[in-house]
Amino acid sequence: MSETEALETHLQELRRGTAVLACLRLLENPGYGYGLLEELSARGFETDANTLYPLLRRLEKQGHLTSEWNTDEARPRKFYRTSTAGSRLAAALTHDFHAIAAAIDALPGATQEQED
Amino acid sequence: MSETEALETHLQELRRGTAVLACLRLLENPGYGYGLLEELSARGFETDANTLYPLLRRLEKQGHLTSEWNTDEARPRKFYRTSTAGSRLAAALTHDFHAIAAAIDALPGATQEQED
Repeated sequence: MSETEALETHLQELRRGTAVLACLRLLENPGYGYGLLEELSARGFETDANTLYPLLRRLEKQGHLTSEWNTDEARPRKFYRTSTAGSRLAAALTHDFHAIAAAIDALPGATQEQED
Repeated sequence: MSETEALETHLQELRRGTAVLACLRLLENPGYGYGLLEELSARGFETDANTLYPLLRRLEKQGHLTSEWNTDEARPRKFYRTSTAGSRLAAALTHDFHAIAAAIDALPGATQEQED
């Protein structure tokens, strides 16, 4: 494994858990999968359809998202909305993320960062 | 899956990627697996031996950690140290973590956090 590949792998791990949080918070305003994908990307949460769509179905199954079909247009589209339980989960994850961020900032040797 | 279980699962995902970063930064001062486990826990990075030891071996295999056996005592112990490549990885992950943290803080609806 090259150094770049190793970095990519570790980075993906670091990012994985934050996608759930981002989806739950963004879908407080109901949205479609595709629009969400674009918004996540614009906000710096890199993900792709093959990751996002199963994640949305999983969150719906857990009761953290609700969904409805919009049949106004020729092709029906499903839109998602964060449920009350989903908002609670988002609040808990946000809280924990801040604790993790504080723990990371408290690590020794936090001096240098990559420049490029 | 109960709401508590769902939270635990999502939380674990959120935390997983940060263990690598914490290990690399803490092992700039060489240490043993067991001591590292205790320090991680004290610093709020909850992990267990079944997760940490394979992670250390994986990071060593990737060249991000080096290891030596200390045979001064009756029972030989392996101690780990972050390599130059490992320091570069830690710097890159730290840099990215800060970008992720900024993206999370920029999400809408970041108002309420869990109180308990």
